[in-house]
Amino acid sequence: VQGVFTHIDWDSVTLLRYILGEDDDMPTPTLFTEMDTLQHDGDEMEWKESARWVKFEEKVEEGGERWSKPHVSTLTLHSLFELRTCIQTGSVLLDLEGYSLPQIVDDIVDRQVADGLIGPELREKVSFVLLRKHRHQHKKPIHLSLADMGKSNNSPTSECVYPAQSRSMNDISDKPSTDQMKNKFMKKIPRDAEASNVLIGEVDFLDKPFVAFVRLAQATTLGGLTEVPVPTRFLFVLLGPHGKGKSYNEIGRAIATLMVDDLFSDVAYKARDRDDLIAGIDEFLDEVIVLPPGEWDPKIRIEPPKKVPSADMRKSVLNLNELGQVNGTGTAGGPGGGEDEEMFCGGLWLDIKRKVPWILSDFSQGFHIQSISAVLFIYLGCITNAITFGGLLGDATDNYQGVMESFLGTALAGTVFCLLGGQPLIILSSTGPILIFEKLLYEFCKSNTIDYMELRLWIGLHSCLQCLILVATDASYIIKYITRFTEEGFSSLISFIFISDAIKKMYYPINRVFKPDYVTTYRCECIAPDQGEPLLSLLFFCLDWSQLSKKECVKYGGALLGNACKYVPDLALISFILFFGTYSMTVSLKKFKTSRYFPTKLRKLISDFSIFMSIMTFVGLDMLVGLDTPKLIVPTEFQPTRPDRGWVVMPFGKNPWWVYVASAVPALLVTILIFMDQQISAVIVNRKENKLKKGCGYHLDLFWVGILMAVCSFLGLPWYVAATVISIAHIDSLKMESESSAPGEQPQFLGVREQRLTGILVFVLTGVSIFLAPVLQYIPMPVLYGVFLYMGVASLAGIQFWERIKLYLMPAKHQPDFSFLRHVPLRRVHLFTLVQIICLAVLWTLKSTVAAIIFPVMILGLMVVRKMMDLMFSQHDLAWLDDILPEKEKKKEKDGKKKKDHKRTKAAEPESDEEVRDED
Amino acid sequence: VQGVFTHIDWDSVTLLRYILGEDDDMPTPTLFTEMDTLQHDGDEMEWKESARWVKFEEKVEEGGERWSKPHVSTLTLHSLFELRTCIQTGSVLLDLEGYSLPQIVDDIVDRQVADGLIGPELREKVSFVLLRKHRHQHKKPIHLSLADMGKSNNSPTSECVYPAQSRSMNDISDKPSTDQMKNKFMKKIPRDAEASNVLIGEVDFLDKPFVAFVRLAQATTLGGLTEVPVPTRFLFVLLGPHGKGKSYNEIGRAIATLMVDDLFSDVAYKARDRDDLIAGIDEFLDEVIVLPPGEWDPKIRIEPPKKVPSADMRKSVLNLNELGQVNGTGTAGGPGGGEDEEMFCGGLWLDIKRKVPWILSDFSQGFHIQSISAVLFIYLGCITNAITFGGLLGDATDNYQGVMESFLGTALAGTVFCLLGGQPLIILSSTGPILIFEKLLYEFCKSNTIDYMELRLWIGLHSCLQCLILVATDASYIIKYITRFTEEGFSSLISFIFISDAIKKMYYPINRVFKPDYVTTYRCECIAPDQGEPLLSLLFFCLDWSQLSKKECVKYGGALLGNACKYVPDLALISFILFFGTYSMTVSLKKFKTSRYFPTKLRKLISDFSIFMSIMTFVGLDMLVGLDTPKLIVPTEFQPTRPDRGWVVMPFGKNPWWVYVASAVPALLVTILIFMDQQISAVIVNRKENKLKKGCGYHLDLFWVGILMAVCSFLGLPWYVAATVISIAHIDSLKMESESSAPGEQPQFLGVREQRLTGILVFVLTGVSIFLAPVLQYIPMPVLYGVFLYMGVASLAGIQFWERIKLYLMPAKHQPDFSFLRHVPLRRVHLFTLVQIICLAVLWTLKSTVAAIIFPVMILGLMVVRKMMDLMFSQHDLAWLDDILPEKEKKKEKDGKKKKDHKRTKAAEPESDEEVRDED
Repeated sequence: VQGVFTHIDWDSVTLLRYILGEDDDMPTPTLFTEMDTLQHDGDEMEWKESARWVKFEEKVEEGGERWSKPHVSTLTLHSLFELRTCIQTGSVLLDLEGYSLPQIVDDIVDRQVADGLIGPELREKVSFVLLRKHRHQHKKPIHLSLADMGKSNNSPTSECVYPAQSRSMNDISDKPSTDQMKNKFMKKIPRDAEASNVLIGEVDFLDKPFVAFVRLAQATTLGGLTEVPVPTRFLFVLLGPHGKGKSYNEIGRAIATLMVDDLFSDVAYKARDRDDLIAGIDEFLDEVIVLPPGEWDPKIRIEPPKKVPSADMRKSVLNLNELGQVNGTGTAGGPGGGEDEEMFCGGLWLDIKRKVPWILSDFSQGFHIQSISAVLFIYLGCITNAITFGGLLGDATDNYQGVMESFLGTALAGTVFCLLGGQPLIILSSTGPILIFEKLLYEFCKSNTIDYMELRLWIGLHSCLQCLILVATDASYIIKYITRFTEEGFSSLISFIFISDAIKKMYYPINRVFKPDYVTTYRCECIAPDQGEPLLSLLFFCLDWSQLSKKECVKYGGALLGNACKYVPDLALISFILFFGTYSMTVSLKKFKTSRYFPTKLRKLISDFSIFMSIMTFVGLDMLVGLDTPKLIVPTEFQPTRPDRGWVVMPFGKNPWWVYVASAVPALLVTILIFMDQQISAVIVNRKENKLKKGCGYHLDLFWVGILMAVCSFLGLPWYVAATVISIAHIDSLKMESESSAPGEQPQFLGVREQRLTGILVFVLTGVSIFLAPVLQYIPMPVLYGVFLYMGVASLAGIQFWERIKLYLMPAKHQPDFSFLRHVPLRRVHLFTLVQIICLAVLWTLKSTVAAIIFPVMILGLMVVRKMMDLMFSQHDLAWLDDILPEKEKKKEKDGKKKKDHKRTKAAEPESDEEVRDED
Repeated sequence: VQGVFTHIDWDSVTLLRYILGEDDDMPTPTLFTEMDTLQHDGDEMEWKESARWVKFEEKVEEGGERWSKPHVSTLTLHSLFELRTCIQTGSVLLDLEGYSLPQIVDDIVDRQVADGLIGPELREKVSFVLLRKHRHQHKKPIHLSLADMGKSNNSPTSECVYPAQSRSMNDISDKPSTDQMKNKFMKKIPRDAEASNVLIGEVDFLDKPFVAFVRLAQATTLGGLTEVPVPTRFLFVLLGPHGKGKSYNEIGRAIATLMVDDLFSDVAYKARDRDDLIAGIDEFLDEVIVLPPGEWDPKIRIEPPKKVPSADMRKSVLNLNELGQVNGTGTAGGPGGGEDEEMFCGGLWLDIKRKVPWILSDFSQGFHIQSISAVLFIYLGCITNAITFGGLLGDATDNYQGVMESFLGTALAGTVFCLLGGQPLIILSSTGPILIFEKLLYEFCKSNTIDYMELRLWIGLHSCLQCLILVATDASYIIKYITRFTEEGFSSLISFIFISDAIKKMYYPINRVFKPDYVTTYRCECIAPDQGEPLLSLLFFCLDWSQLSKKECVKYGGALLGNACKYVPDLALISFILFFGTYSMTVSLKKFKTSRYFPTKLRKLISDFSIFMSIMTFVGLDMLVGLDTPKLIVPTEFQPTRPDRGWVVMPFGKNPWWVYVASAVPALLVTILIFMDQQISAVIVNRKENKLKKGCGYHLDLFWVGILMAVCSFLGLPWYVAATVISIAHIDSLKMESESSAPGEQPQFLGVREQRLTGILVFVLTGVSIFLAPVLQYIPMPVLYGVFLYMGVASLAGIQFWERIKLYLMPAKHQPDFSFLRHVPLRRVHLFTLVQIICLAVLWTLKSTVAAIIFPVMILGLMVVRKMMDLMFSQHDLAWLDDILPEKEKKKEKDGKKKKDHKRTKAAEPESDEEVRDED
């Protein structure tokens, strides 16, 4: 079988190595290719643009006066072989000194005559044809541009007139026209680009094809030849006798496609002679992908793929480099490249060293319109959270810490953390376990007559100290054991809790026994309290009880009687509509980015501001309907919620001395809570999928969380730790995508706008919310819970765990083409998912009991389960479904290396958009 | 450029003409191809299935123990050329008499030895390898089947043992195994299929490839060779030295893809020698489509296209047949082929002649589960309509015709029409214009003391006569002028009205001033009427007015006073939820058919019964919430709504004689109303897109509509005419799709279950609804209006007009690839759409005035506008956007023919799924 591919000279392919290897350090410019075909309009001839290529093909639709969508150029094998013959037999002029089109045309024709390819009598005619005017496909309709050439349209002869003095009949000007300069398409072409022009035409004076391939020594602007003012470097001319127009057209498309091929364009730039070009074509032919005619319709335009393999791969094969090596250099120094190292050699010092270089960009990168929407979104999330937790905390601690403290604490802790923390994308917030701890602590204090605030201060101080010890001992090393299994399990659970909390808040009673016919018996009356003394009774009689409002009635000691008292009509349902409406409008607007309507920029804007627009819409609806829905009420006066406490807690004096020491024990629990909660949230934020570039800072994060605990304890404010769901929302609202460059290229997810500005602004705004109360009071709570629901659901998106759960419901043949499904048997995938589901169910049950206080510690439980799964699953399966645990990694280094290589070559495997495993 | 493709012997392609032309009347069987690769497991070797082809490729995933999705086989050009060489140099055994695999293998090896391709010493080894067991990819996991061969796994030598007595070591049995017989995949393979087996392996005893292509004289079941019990006809063997496995694999894929290619499989069956096969490969190569390596990633699996060009096209090129001829014979005698003829030579007789042959199938085709869902859906639509119109008609005619008459008339007219009409898919119903006419007529009668029922009878009789005249004179010919423009405009408008009516019905007042705090002052009291006489007043005093219900209060003459009287709490919002919930659940369940979840059949069922399931869900929700929503109440006693009228109207006696004559004038208006409304609805139902096979019956339809008018007039029932929206809903709920045959082939829309059963059942059910009242009373009206909304919106789907409206909002580059966009400039498309929008706006405005009565006549207006558009638009543009009007068609016959051909070749152009222009 070896060497069977003999009818193409494969040896010439080896030539390419030398051609391309010569000066590999100087990259060749990007080529823009335009194909013009000769049009006959009565006597007149002109070149009309029929297609163009930046990377993919765009065709001028025949009658539609429009550009087709960019698509993959599907060629016929026939045309490629014909092109090969054209290059073999036609004139090839390399490094021609060209300064104007007439001169270049002269040179081409001279060469053809010299080579005996055409007779000298055709010289004038060929030149004349090649110098006809070029009409490009612009926005303006063709019939307008046709108007200015209608003069000779009435002469019925179809025979073209080739004047003897072609020079004087030159339609081509030397300077770029205004049309060219104004062409917006220029934006899509790289700045250093050069043009290659393909000219294809049928003429009546030739009896065999006239082919020329020209490379100019310098790229030169040849007047109106190209639709955009890009200098021309290559020229391919194919003129031939009438009747084979379709075939010529295909050859033109073939050379145009070759010219935009990264490898062939290199060859074209560096070719020394005709044979080098042929070798380039042969290399191209060797790499083409073939679709069988019975399984594909050639008329279907194939959409550009999400990713194409880089030409470096093909070059490297030619250069006899190893595949791995190329990949290696490609990723070295890239984002997150040093993550492993960071994890191993962690430490506060390293974190600081890693963060310092970014100080400036941490602020400068924040100046973007996206930041505004992110700040609004996260701000609303934060104050809703602050109010909710503040209210609950106030109930739990008899208002020792209430809504006011919650606002102040959130603002203080958040600002400091975003300004100085290791991962400023993390949003601090009160969390459930802390709330339960405070509740238990307050009850303990009350029943044992210990001063709550003082004890709490000491617990905070101890906990701060313990955190600092953890920082100093590099305990954050533990995150290495938090794999995808643990991380996705935890974040799913937190999202669940978020969603269920949001929905629970939406319960309002509906009067289900109301019958419209009996509306006459349906009321709520204020009944005066029963008075023994007739005198007093008389006094009460003076008060018109039936005119009192509900609040007044209760105030004066009256009783509310009647079947209407419990219910507020329409409240439940309007709340449902506000809640669900906000959620679904946000979801729809987010999706709007990928719709077909409106220009890309507008869609992006709508998508970025989707939350803001939904909130505004439903606040408006609420005002329009005018029902008395519960609103967002923030405190307006700056004073502690409980009047008998000040802003600072004194450490001594109220409790016996041993309490100061003993408080180290509960502090230990708090420390573990804080540590686990903080670190897993940080792991989730630092997920590979987010493509963070500025590295993580687990130790620095913990350092500041510890310090802030001490500060908050002194001020009697709640304690703060990273909030998973809001942090994910923060990241989601700051995602960046590449502007698509060549038409048809898909925008790529570039990473997150990593900066400190949005976080700081959110918390500063939270601090000044006291002054924003008049505006905020229009926002109904159901709308905000709708935002919470959205946050919860959105943070579930893109989690592999969910994709795997969905697989249970899909027959195997409909399942998406996830790479792990190609490599791990479905039974094993299902088993893995089942273990995860069971873990979550157990955690969910525990969460509903008193054990909720140790909830973050359950992460440890998940990690233990994950460790035991090493016994159930092969390392191969786990590598695809999860990550390998660290100790194993060393043992399996040999296997791993093999597997990694294996996976690296598999990395290019197509997967459904939802799930892409980044291997680096 | 001609003849450049010389390195392949293109002359041999001409050979194919003779091969294929020989006995073209005998079609060759479909081929199922299985590719097995040789696996080494320690000492043991076995053949493992690695891919299979029915039409598209399915690959066994490496580690996933699963079949990949069917995809287009993307080959490398390299492998095709290598395959060509293989066939050139290997052994080709055609029409080998084979009865068992060992004998066939012997013959192959003998030939190889005879040709000197392998030394005789390798004979045993090759035979041994080729007779190893074949393991197929079944559902059962591999590790189980591995268990029964673990015996020799502990011997560490990797050198294979080739026993001298290979015969005794034959792993292949002669009979199909139970695994084979049980394989469900058999369903996907046509009954007459034969198998081709491709065996690819690396062995250590060969130093050059061993290639054999075998065609057996008779297809023979060769034991466990193939995964399914399909007899083998072809065998391709490629064994080679170690190290080139990937390349061998690609060659195997290439021959397998060739074998399932329609044209090449023909060649393979008919080839006389090696050269014929080579010619087949060359023809294939000439037709392949090539993707450039820089624009496509070869690892992407390409989904099978919706349609592939038929191989007949390729064959016809070989046979020098004309393209048009092939197409012509392809469609002759096909569905709707004679539609034009039907229209021209219409007439009642032709209609009947056309309908008679289908009598049996009109009933037999109705027995399908889909019919049940269609009946339920349309039944609910019909009774809702009957109740709505009955109520309005009762108001308009002082109950001379009320809900009872409406039910009875609907049942009678509908049953007769579905049983005997020309197009039984049409659903009859009362329509708006008739309602307005009745209202005006009744008012006229009342003010002029003419007996309404008698006059109405005479109008009905005249109208019936006029209809019969229209039938006799073939007036339905006019429908030829109803083009897409008119049809889509009218149906959009009707859908609009449907939607707006549904939404209007949903208005319930909400008490927007309610403040929960003042619930104490919120009531509705019954106030006793002011009584002058003290005695009476005393009497009234005995009545406890405050205890009366709303109805009782009004009954006894009391006044309702208070801010609560007007409102029913929660009603507006629960109605909104029921209405919108039913609508959106139906839409989601309909879409569920294309989701990934659950097996195809279940999804189809869910989609078919979506309306039923939504109604059940929201009826359940309504019962659960228990609010007093308005319900569907049908009359339960069989008697005329107005007690003073009987069931039969007498023609004489109540009005003066001249009224009997003069009634012919209003009858003319009614006739025009009926005629236009009936015919345009029929045109919409008979749309080409619906692919109806039993032809239309415009004259027969009109005949029965006329007769039913007379009958209904005698019985004093409303008049009935085709209802556009419900008829479209009827058709939509009866759509059929092909079961996909080869894996990966898309199911095609086959047409509509054309039968009379569903229609008849709907109307019989309507008739007996009186007895269904206890069940129907649980259905809240908002749910039914939700169904109406769905009907209205669904009947807009797939209308080109809407696609064109959407284009206004899309930037050109995001617009779908509609074929009319490729051929008509966007400005013209927008202009055309604009004219349509203006027409609709005018009609909508007119409809809201008294002119509503002549609403159906406005179709004539649309047709006039369309005629005038001939002046604004070129016939070319109109042909793409609309249809050409009849007169033009004759004039433009020459152009048209050209254009038609042009369009026929363009017919294969890819379009977005929404819009497919059927040309036949």
